[in-house]
Amino acid sequence: MLENRIIRIIEGIVGEQHVSTADTDRLCYSYDATQRQHRPDAVVWPSNAKEISLLLKMANAEGIPVYPRGAGSGFTGGSLPIHGGLALVLTRLDAILRIDEENLIAEVEPGVVTRQLQKAVEALGLFYPPDPASLKFSTLGGNVAECAGGPRCVKYGVTKDYVLGLEVVTPQGDIIRTGGETMKGVVGYDLTKLLVGSEGTLGVITKIILKLLPLPAAKKTMLVLFDSIDGAAQAVAAIIGGKIIPTTLEFMDGTTIDCVRRNTDLELPQAARAVLIIEVDGDSALIEKQAETILKLVNPLGVVNTWVAANSEESEAIWQVRRSVSPSMRKVNPDKFNEDICVPRSRLPEMIRTIEAISDKLQIPIVNFGHAGDGNIHVNIMVDTAEPGQEQKAKQAIEEIFAATLKLGGTMSGEHGVGVTKAPYIPMELDPAAVAYMKAIKKALDPNNILNPGKIFLQD
Amino acid sequence: MLENRIIRIIEGIVGEQHVSTADTDRLCYSYDATQRQHRPDAVVWPSNAKEISLLLKMANAEGIPVYPRGAGSGFTGGSLPIHGGLALVLTRLDAILRIDEENLIAEVEPGVVTRQLQKAVEALGLFYPPDPASLKFSTLGGNVAECAGGPRCVKYGVTKDYVLGLEVVTPQGDIIRTGGETMKGVVGYDLTKLLVGSEGTLGVITKIILKLLPLPAAKKTMLVLFDSIDGAAQAVAAIIGGKIIPTTLEFMDGTTIDCVRRNTDLELPQAARAVLIIEVDGDSALIEKQAETILKLVNPLGVVNTWVAANSEESEAIWQVRRSVSPSMRKVNPDKFNEDICVPRSRLPEMIRTIEAISDKLQIPIVNFGHAGDGNIHVNIMVDTAEPGQEQKAKQAIEEIFAATLKLGGTMSGEHGVGVTKAPYIPMELDPAAVAYMKAIKKALDPNNILNPGKIFLQD
Repeated sequence: MLENRIIRIIEGIVGEQHVSTADTDRLCYSYDATQRQHRPDAVVWPSNAKEISLLLKMANAEGIPVYPRGAGSGFTGGSLPIHGGLALVLTRLDAILRIDEENLIAEVEPGVVTRQLQKAVEALGLFYPPDPASLKFSTLGGNVAECAGGPRCVKYGVTKDYVLGLEVVTPQGDIIRTGGETMKGVVGYDLTKLLVGSEGTLGVITKIILKLLPLPAAKKTMLVLFDSIDGAAQAVAAIIGGKIIPTTLEFMDGTTIDCVRRNTDLELPQAARAVLIIEVDGDSALIEKQAETILKLVNPLGVVNTWVAANSEESEAIWQVRRSVSPSMRKVNPDKFNEDICVPRSRLPEMIRTIEAISDKLQIPIVNFGHAGDGNIHVNIMVDTAEPGQEQKAKQAIEEIFAATLKLGGTMSGEHGVGVTKAPYIPMELDPAAVAYMKAIKKALDPNNILNPGKIFLQD
Repeated sequence: MLENRIIRIIEGIVGEQHVSTADTDRLCYSYDATQRQHRPDAVVWPSNAKEISLLLKMANAEGIPVYPRGAGSGFTGGSLPIHGGLALVLTRLDAILRIDEENLIAEVEPGVVTRQLQKAVEALGLFYPPDPASLKFSTLGGNVAECAGGPRCVKYGVTKDYVLGLEVVTPQGDIIRTGGETMKGVVGYDLTKLLVGSEGTLGVITKIILKLLPLPAAKKTMLVLFDSIDGAAQAVAAIIGGKIIPTTLEFMDGTTIDCVRRNTDLELPQAARAVLIIEVDGDSALIEKQAETILKLVNPLGVVNTWVAANSEESEAIWQVRRSVSPSMRKVNPDKFNEDICVPRSRLPEMIRTIEAISDKLQIPIVNFGHAGDGNIHVNIMVDTAEPGQEQKAKQAIEEIFAATLKLGGTMSGEHGVGVTKAPYIPMELDPAAVAYMKAIKKALDPNNILNPGKIFLQD
């Protein structure tokens, strides 16, 4: 619990109505999408960098942990206040400050919801590609802190590829600008890219300068059903080998298809054991040609059925198949351990076979889908933790899957981050010298360990 | 001078024939493209990470500065051994370790020459876009350390956009791997991107994993002469506004044209006061269409003449105009102060006008050309330092140009880095808190200040 004295200081900084120690607020801000719970001692809603600077200076002086958060949609507990202290909610910093059509950049505050920016720039014929599944509610600050990805990343890259500059409050309360608004810039260390994906441990992001692209003129969506996961994987290889990088190359494995078939009205033939959703975008004549080439390349690879969207409604219907996955999974088992491993794309079939073997051995359903184009698989281990032994089995599965991932040259997280859920597994992926190098950075920049303590590998 | 004892240790690590204290070698490795001279006490040519690790451990124990270098083609003195010690030459680490056509990645050692990798991947229908002007002799290690750019960056981005992972020897001699070979990866801090552009101050790069793209099917080159720099700048805005991002948008100002005209056989009409070289690449039908659109967009903007290359020979002839700039400049005045400021592209005409005013005021020729697409201008201040007062005038010009650049939202370096030449101007661009944050990183990772001391803003 925080002393009253501290609450009075915070009230002085942000105003009385923007700090709360009420149980309801502490409960509301005690969890994220991992559904773990850790209550903060107080919830604070600052409105600008100056206030955040003062809060952090006070926190350093008093030794109070500070946990920045956006929409709390993270999958690894990055924003959970595991040592109590302050939940620093950034949703009041929600302005799109400017969209510069000449220089193709946008400047936003961290509380802007991703989809909101996308709509604003699309209205001007511009494009902000990163598209995490949470984009309708996740905030750009959270996207930057976690380096969010999404289906379109195979062609367009991830969040870090779009962040040109930041305004950041350092752990000790200085307000700094990193990077800028130019496409090139090499003056000093690239703090911008260091901060992207640092999960709120090295600074609080208060402004973001984002690179935009021209909006592609048209897009074309195809759904292809294969009789095996190998066929789908070969199709991915054939398309990339054919020198086409589609906008999306999403896949669903056989377990996912069963899941969708059992729980929705979508008609998916029994013979289908893998699905690819392939989208291409750009010049309308070019994408017609690319779609033709793609179908020619994949056809010999065990295709059960193909559906090429004739218009945007049909495209939407195809994406509905993908979107039905998460809701339909909930019916398999009540509890989900959701990982997002990433392997070099050519190792995808090997990885899926390994996961299937682990699922068979442990007798727990594992549903795999995700971004085949960049080898990023969402592995969903479905258990009922109320049943004895199930949680343990899930943990064994996770460990075996991570080990296999690393053996194939992959990483245990493509886009969700480490947070608290993956922290125990870090020594499997990073060697001690690399962890020491990272810890030295954290310690240098946050000597009192105030900002988001206990996260990533930075266990206290 | 180093004690004999130290030389014996180094010989023990790298072999007698791979270390030298001969005056000739110390002279050869005393300069880079800035033509400043600082002699190292010894030159060492290690062959692998293990040797570099041992050298750095010894250097820490003995307090000897270590200056890594590739081809020494840097423009800001990043590799100059300004405190003596060891010149650590990385050219023996020159293997292309693998080109993975399925996963579109290459793994290389730092001593591989940029063009050599490009040729190797192009032979397989693949593409490594970054194209610094030095690509025929600069090494990939140097490109990564400086975050090299080039004309194609307007469409394809800079070196950092292609570096997926590194093997690095830390300043204290640990060998670590950062990033990996997947397109996505968010486990721990993004050390890869922190190291790119850190100018050899945070680690010695010993392996690089690079992302590749499919080689564009075709390209089309156009040279357009304008009657004013404003016409050329409006053309850039019109093209980007027309939702086309060309591969290159290179410009040359009136002074550059005069220079080329006086010193080569190239025919450039007197009315031409600015040139744009515009190249588009991709699908052959699409680029024809884009070229047509571009010509339609730029035609009303004071076009004096247009030359569309009909084939690769004509394209080569157009690029010859650009390549003739540097040699022809040498005839203007013997000494060149070469800066590479970058402004938001819409501020280009304002920036050029400001530079022209400074040139008029100080009565020294300033030749401007560069990458209009990303606002990156190569500003060449031409003086004769043998004449009294000229060097001082050049320095005044640089300071005024930097001030104007920053006022327009730009940066003093788009691709050349800080090194030693720009270090004195750092306080103009970065605020003290940002510099302190960077210095804290350097100090944490290199506590004995062994690796490339005295560089960037990290003055001792």
